[in-house]
Amino acid sequence: MENIRVVVNGAKGRMGQETVKAVEAAEDMRLVAACDLADDFVEAARSAGADAIVDFTVPSVAMENARRIMETDCAGVIGTTGFTAEDVEKLRGEAERREKGILIAPNFAIGAVLMMRFAAEAARVMPDVEIIELHHPGKVDAPSGTALKTAALIAEAKEKAGLGTAKPVGEGQAPRGMVVDGVCVHSVRLTGLLAHQEVILGGEGQTLSIRHDTISRASFMPGVLLGIREMVKRGGLVYGLDSLLFE
Amino acid sequence: MENIRVVVNGAKGRMGQETVKAVEAAEDMRLVAACDLADDFVEAARSAGADAIVDFTVPSVAMENARRIMETDCAGVIGTTGFTAEDVEKLRGEAERREKGILIAPNFAIGAVLMMRFAAEAARVMPDVEIIELHHPGKVDAPSGTALKTAALIAEAKEKAGLGTAKPVGEGQAPRGMVVDGVCVHSVRLTGLLAHQEVILGGEGQTLSIRHDTISRASFMPGVLLGIREMVKRGGLVYGLDSLLFE
Amino acid sequence: MENIRVVVNGAKGRMGQETVKAVEAAEDMRLVAACDLADDFVEAARSAGADAIVDFTVPSVAMENARRIMETDCAGVIGTTGFTAEDVEKLRGEAERREKGILIAPNFAIGAVLMMRFAAEAARVMPDVEIIELHHPGKVDAPSGTALKTAALIAEAKEKAGLGTAKPVGEGQAPRGMVVDGVCVHSVRLTGLLAHQEVILGGEGQTLSIRHDTISRASFMPGVLLGIREMVKRGGLVYGLDSLLFE
Amino acid sequence: MENIRVVVNGAKGRMGQETVKAVEAAEDMRLVAACDLADDFVEAARSAGADAIVDFTVPSVAMENARRIMETDCAGVIGTTGFTAEDVEKLRGEAERREKGILIAPNFAIGAVLMMRFAAEAARVMPDVEIIELHHPGKVDAPSGTALKTAALIAEAKEKAGLGTAKPVGEGQAPRGMVVDGVCVHSVRLTGLLAHQEVILGGEGQTLSIRHDTISRASFMPGVLLGIREMVKRGGLVYGLDSLLFE
Repeated sequence: MENIRVVVNGAKGRMGQETVKAVEAAEDMRLVAACDLADDFVEAARSAGADAIVDFTVPSVAMENARRIMETDCAGVIGTTGFTAEDVEKLRGEAERREKGILIAPNFAIGAVLMMRFAAEAARVMPDVEIIELHHPGKVDAPSGTALKTAALIAEAKEKAGLGTAKPVGEGQAPRGMVVDGVCVHSVRLTGLLAHQEVILGGEGQTLSIRHDTISRASFMPGVLLGIREMVKRGGLVYGLDSLLFE
Repeated sequence: MENIRVVVNGAKGRMGQETVKAVEAAEDMRLVAACDLADDFVEAARSAGADAIVDFTVPSVAMENARRIMETDCAGVIGTTGFTAEDVEKLRGEAERREKGILIAPNFAIGAVLMMRFAAEAARVMPDVEIIELHHPGKVDAPSGTALKTAALIAEAKEKAGLGTAKPVGEGQAPRGMVVDGVCVHSVRLTGLLAHQEVILGGEGQTLSIRHDTISRASFMPGVLLGIREMVKRGGLVYGLDSLLFE
Repeated sequence: MENIRVVVNGAKGRMGQETVKAVEAAEDMRLVAACDLADDFVEAARSAGADAIVDFTVPSVAMENARRIMETDCAGVIGTTGFTAEDVEKLRGEAERREKGILIAPNFAIGAVLMMRFAAEAARVMPDVEIIELHHPGKVDAPSGTALKTAALIAEAKEKAGLGTAKPVGEGQAPRGMVVDGVCVHSVRLTGLLAHQEVILGGEGQTLSIRHDTISRASFMPGVLLGIREMVKRGGLVYGLDSLLFE
Repeated sequence: MENIRVVVNGAKGRMGQETVKAVEAAEDMRLVAACDLADDFVEAARSAGADAIVDFTVPSVAMENARRIMETDCAGVIGTTGFTAEDVEKLRGEAERREKGILIAPNFAIGAVLMMRFAAEAARVMPDVEIIELHHPGKVDAPSGTALKTAALIAEAKEKAGLGTAKPVGEGQAPRGMVVDGVCVHSVRLTGLLAHQEVILGGEGQTLSIRHDTISRASFMPGVLLGIREMVKRGGLVYGLDSLLFE
């Protein structure tokens, strides 16, 4: 099979730089253009005969860039944040006619996506659950976005399974953390950590712990590459790496 | 709804005793007979108008007991080990005509079943995986049955996903453990442990760890009760708690 | 060497029952009396020619029992809580003349005592530290007494080392837990847990985690037996198992 | 107080580069020279009026460099490996007369040094112990040097405490790992790991786990800086960071 010809847009950002390296290192891909804000990535993609465009830019241009990608006949892998659910639905309709697909994903760390999925599945049959997320002290928000998302997925899974959300023991006491969608979330901030999360589920006489540890931004790249490989093979829009991993 | 009337067969064994306690404690069940080896559990079930029979006896009578349960109109939940794949298929055919179902399960710990399932799913997309199982020093076998089963499920999932099994780094060196179906398995034996297992999956820049900790035999009971509740509602044979949790 | 002759006072309580079993199982000891509230344990010790008295009773009689033990010529191992620092100092003076010693210890779990000691030592050279304690949902207090004690020991060690206590990042935000003596403490409550604590220390590019897991009350017994063996060999008063382990 | 004037020798190696960055970032230090193999670091130290020389070079010149540092009046912090016990003793004698000290340390990760120390202390009172070390798959040796050192320190501590080394359960079986000085050592190798070790100690009803996680080479720097700060204040030779942390 021929190499997939890839354009990276936002190539000077932190994620963009990693993507450039990852595409260059992938045996089945070839980097044909690395564009930044001032560059016309659509023009670059056309003149290079690209198969796929990866976009890691900024929320303010997310929607515009998505539309511009759809004007090309390239697959699109979009990690830029800022899409509303409405935006995604609009794009989904427009993407149906395309030969190549569009992936919009808020998180490309395969392990984190698996953790969230497994936590939600397990919560249907193990009654108690708490989340501990651990990050470096420079992280400005607490709890992390991943912890909030995990709690939301757990609550959704419990509701679908017809389980009421029990009020956590000791709710409101300081050491019990923040209750998010009925789930206690604890945020640890320590020098020497990067990005970690553990979901602990409890049942009679047993616990199940699902933990994701990240030690570098390289952890996002297998998810990006998987997105590229899948999107060149299919039409339509896919939201969330999750959907690719478990279909 | 009326209470489910349950007979426990093998009620003096370790699992049987726990089941008796668990059924007595369950709000939607009623223990109508606790039989041991010398007792005729079929007769007991009939005269008590039982809805379900739980069997935790010995491999030598596993098949016979399964057949005898099928002569009644009770649901069956069988934790006795010793069934071959052939045995299960024979029983499956016979169970199809029944109004209530038969569950045969080698492991009733919901958390362990989830761990095995999640490990196999994750192994399709995270390339490296090793298993550490940790038990009290009185455990006679190493690796544990659960570790062997986990490795087999991982290998099966990788094969289905078209992934070759890579030879583990340092295979054959003593500290690298035992290679089971292409997966390094490490067995820890320490006073103060009961039964624990951690599956660690590695990918670029990240790891995903799935850990199950058991602190008492009570951990098997939610699985047994789930089996009872489900089997009174359906016909046919179900093999593995797994199938109930993820259908 | 002859067996140590032991009286257990408070033999019907939970700790007392465990002590009775542990003394009976110890090869170098012999249980000569098991007393409860109504019994005169001093008389029992004398008539049985006891070498040591273990006391697990209630705070209201702690001081009185300690004094009564000191009237005998037995060693004393006291796990009853309720002693003030003043009480201990008073008893220390009186104990100096004795041939056999008196141990007063609030916690007999050797692993927990080690964890607290190590955490305090490490905090002198690793700048960041947080505590996660995890218990069954039936535990009424949060944080646990052990977590409070650990935080106090850490603060004391930092002060001795001339380190100021930095204000924890995000202090006061709900997911950051309760700040105790300058240390963030997080309390997890889940079915399937018994009693666990992890102290995580962070430094540049690294973390050190010290974790204690308890799976049964039997965990306190090696500390009690160690106390008996040491106290029959020496005079004076010892406060805290800690002092025996590290002298 | 004036800044400590530091020469880094071996400044182009991986550890040397990190040291250069760390010294530059330290508020109480000033980098006055960064030398590599071809440079005369002694001359550089003299002409810059240096207070301390850090040496991360190669085993073949370790002893020679140590002697050359001792000809200056600088403190020395030596991370180069290759010193025999005999070498160290020879240098110790010569170092006694010096005003500033010499530190020779095989491992500068404070957390790893603490882990080894705590594991050895705990092994005196908790009977069972196993070591799990986890590294990236590129690591050529198994078990790691740190694991071997930890096992040796544990064995030494047990012997001093008069404890025999029990034969590990299941010794010789593949999943039980390699027995080093009576301690089972398990080596895990997975993409996504960097350098990690967990020592698990078991006693009746409880376990104590001591774990060190490294996520970057920066983890060695606080130990190097501590060495510089201490060695400018004292004469003599110190072997092992350990000795500085616990004196």
